[in-house]
Amino acid sequence: MMEKGDFFKLTKEDTGTGARLGTIRTDHGESETPTFMPVGTQGTVKALIPEEVAQTGARIILCNTYHLYLRPGADLIFRAGGLHKFMNWPNTILTDSGGFQVNSLAHLSKIGEEGVLFRSHIDGSLHLLTPEKSIEVQEKLGSDIMMPLDICRPNPSPYKKYEEALKQTSRWATRSKQFHEGKPGILFGIIQGGIYLDLRLASLEDIEELDLPGLAIGGLSVGEEKEKMYEILEGLIPHIPREKPRYLMGVGAPSSLVKGVSLGIDLFDCVLPTRLGRNGTAYCAYGKINIDNACFREDFSPLDPACDCYVCKNYTRAYLRHLFVSREMLAGRLLSYHNLYFLGKLMAQIRQAIKEDRFLEFQREFQKIYQERSIKE
Amino acid sequence: MMEKGDFFKLTKEDTGTGARLGTIRTDHGESETPTFMPVGTQGTVKALIPEEVAQTGARIILCNTYHLYLRPGADLIFRAGGLHKFMNWPNTILTDSGGFQVNSLAHLSKIGEEGVLFRSHIDGSLHLLTPEKSIEVQEKLGSDIMMPLDICRPNPSPYKKYEEALKQTSRWATRSKQFHEGKPGILFGIIQGGIYLDLRLASLEDIEELDLPGLAIGGLSVGEEKEKMYEILEGLIPHIPREKPRYLMGVGAPSSLVKGVSLGIDLFDCVLPTRLGRNGTAYCAYGKINIDNACFREDFSPLDPACDCYVCKNYTRAYLRHLFVSREMLAGRLLSYHNLYFLGKLMAQIRQAIKEDRFLEFQREFQKIYQERSIKE
Repeated sequence: MMEKGDFFKLTKEDTGTGARLGTIRTDHGESETPTFMPVGTQGTVKALIPEEVAQTGARIILCNTYHLYLRPGADLIFRAGGLHKFMNWPNTILTDSGGFQVNSLAHLSKIGEEGVLFRSHIDGSLHLLTPEKSIEVQEKLGSDIMMPLDICRPNPSPYKKYEEALKQTSRWATRSKQFHEGKPGILFGIIQGGIYLDLRLASLEDIEELDLPGLAIGGLSVGEEKEKMYEILEGLIPHIPREKPRYLMGVGAPSSLVKGVSLGIDLFDCVLPTRLGRNGTAYCAYGKINIDNACFREDFSPLDPACDCYVCKNYTRAYLRHLFVSREMLAGRLLSYHNLYFLGKLMAQIRQAIKEDRFLEFQREFQKIYQERSIKE
Repeated sequence: MMEKGDFFKLTKEDTGTGARLGTIRTDHGESETPTFMPVGTQGTVKALIPEEVAQTGARIILCNTYHLYLRPGADLIFRAGGLHKFMNWPNTILTDSGGFQVNSLAHLSKIGEEGVLFRSHIDGSLHLLTPEKSIEVQEKLGSDIMMPLDICRPNPSPYKKYEEALKQTSRWATRSKQFHEGKPGILFGIIQGGIYLDLRLASLEDIEELDLPGLAIGGLSVGEEKEKMYEILEGLIPHIPREKPRYLMGVGAPSSLVKGVSLGIDLFDCVLPTRLGRNGTAYCAYGKINIDNACFREDFSPLDPACDCYVCKNYTRAYLRHLFVSREMLAGRLLSYHNLYFLGKLMAQIRQAIKEDRFLEFQREFQKIYQERSIKE
C-alpha cells in the first residue's frame, strides 16, 4: 500500500499565474496534473471502453457512488474484486460521496444530522446515506480517492442556508475521517460556502483542521455566473496549502479548464464531454459545433480540422452527421471519444505550457481563439 | 480494375458434403469463403468501428441500398468519394438491391413491370425503384458486389404468386445486367421461387442464361420451416455451376451457417448477431444466453468461457448484465462485438475443418454441442 505522503507531488508553480504542475500517485498508477477526469457514472464512461478513455490521456476517472450503490450494489462489486476489476479500468478511480446525486436525482431526500434519507430513483426503495455509509460504500468499491458526504446548496440560496450547509459538511467530514482512519485510499475534504467568500474561508478553516491530503471545492458551477465562480476561486485558493491538490468538482467546459488552471486548480471532472457527444455536439478549435446542423450535410472535412484523434483522422462531418440524424449509436460513441480527446489534449497542452513557462501566453491565445458557444464554420 | 474472371476462385471441394473453400477477390481485397458478412445497414455496423468488424474476421460487409438511397442519398456518398471512404471500411462491400426493404419497411409499395413505387418510411416521399435505378444507386455507392432488384414473396404465398415473382425477378435481372454492362463491380443474379423446387430450378435456368458471376438465393428464411429451407437448398444447389459463389441471403444463425456450408453455400449475411447483441443476447458455445437473466447477476465468469474475444477476456457476465440493465450503450456495443466474433470464429473453424478434410466430423460435433435456443448455464 502506498504511503499517503506520496499521494501528491507539486513539481512546478507558474510565476505569472496560479497554475501548477504536479503528480498524483495512487495504488493504481500516476497522473500528471492539472488533469481532466472523465465521468463513468455507472461504472462505464458512456459508450467507450477503458482503453479508449486512456487513449484520450485520462489516468483518473470519476465514478458515482450513488448510482453504483443502488445498482449493481457495493457488495456485488466488492465480490467482483472491486470496481477497477469489474469495469476493467486499471488506473485511478475517484468516487464522489453520493450526496450531490441524492439531492438532484433521488426522490424525497431529507437531510438530518445523521445523514440523508432518500428514495431510489430506480425502484423507490428507502435508504439512509450517512457519512459513514458513504465511505463504507466507497471502500467496498475499492476507490483510490474518496469524497466525504457533503451538502451542496442550489444557487441562489440565502446566506444562512449556505452557512448551515457548510457547517453540516464540516461535521460530516469529521465523521468521515474517523470512519476511514487506517484504511486504504485517500480521503479528500470538501469546501462549501456557496457564493460567499467569507463562508468559503470558514469552510476551508474547518476542513483544514482535519488535515486531509486533498481538497475539493464543491457547490460551484451550479447556476451562478461564471465570473462569480472565478471570483470565489480567486479569493479562496491562495489560502489552501500549496502542497495539497485542489479539485474543482463538476467543472469541465474548455474555457473553465484553462481559467481554473490559471487560478490553481489541479483536478476537474464533468459529464459534459460525453453528454454533449451523445447529443451531437463536438468541441472544435474555435468552439462547439452541433453536428446535426444542415450546414454539415456535405461537409467532407474532419470534425475538428485541428485535431489528430481517431475520429478526426478517419471520418467526415458529413458522415458523423449522417450517423447522428440516423440515430446510430456510433455517432454518440465517436463524438464522446473526440470530446474527451479534445479535453485530454487541452490539458496536455496546458501542462506543456506551464513546463515551458509560457502558460499565460497559452491562456491568452486560447481565449482569443476559443469561444464557449456553438458556432458554424 | 479487377478482371471479372478473377472474382471467385474455388480452391477445394469437400468429399463427404457439399462444403467448399474459395476466395473472393474484389478491388477492395480478398475474403476466404465460406464467410459470414456482417450487416452495416446505414453505412455502419451498428455500434462498432470498421476496425472492430475486421477484428472479428469479416472481410465483406453488406450495406442496404434502400436506407442509403433515402439517407444520406447516393449522390452525397458519391461526392464523398464512395461508401468505402465515407464509412471508413477499406474492404469489400456487398449491397442489396433495396427490393426487400421496399417491401418490408416502406409505406404503400406497389409493384409494376417498371419497378416498385413506394413511400419513404422516413419522410413519406414518393419514389420509383426500378432495376436500373437500383444498379445506378449501387454504382454511385461504389459497391463491389451488387444485387439486381428482385421480388421476394412472403411465406406462405400461393404457387402462382411465387411463379410470377420469379419471372418478374428474371426480367429485372436482364434489365439490371444490361444497365450495368461494362461498369465496375460484380453483379449477382438472384434465384427466387419460394418453397417449390421446380420454381427454384426454373428461376436458376432463367438467371443462368445471363451468366452472371455469382448467384444469390433469396426468399428463404422468411417464415418457412428450417427443414423446408434445407430441402430447397439440397435440391437446388447441385444445379448451380460449381465455379460460381452461392450467397444465401439473410441467413446467419450459427446452426444455419454450419448446415448451409454443408449444402454448398459460400456467403451468408444476417442482422441477427448485432440485433441480438443490442437486445442483450449473446452466442455461447452451447447456445444463446440472455444477459439480463437474474442468474447472471453475480456470475463473474466470461460471457462465453470458450471464447477468446476482447469482451470475454476483459469482462464478466455480471458486469455486462449491469451495463444492460442500466441501459448503457456499452452493453450493446460489447455484445455485438462478441456475437460477430463468435460467428467469425465459427466460419474460420469451418474453413479449417474443410481444409483438413474433417468438416463432416466438425459438423456432427457442433450439432451435438450447440443448441439454437436460449439456455441458462
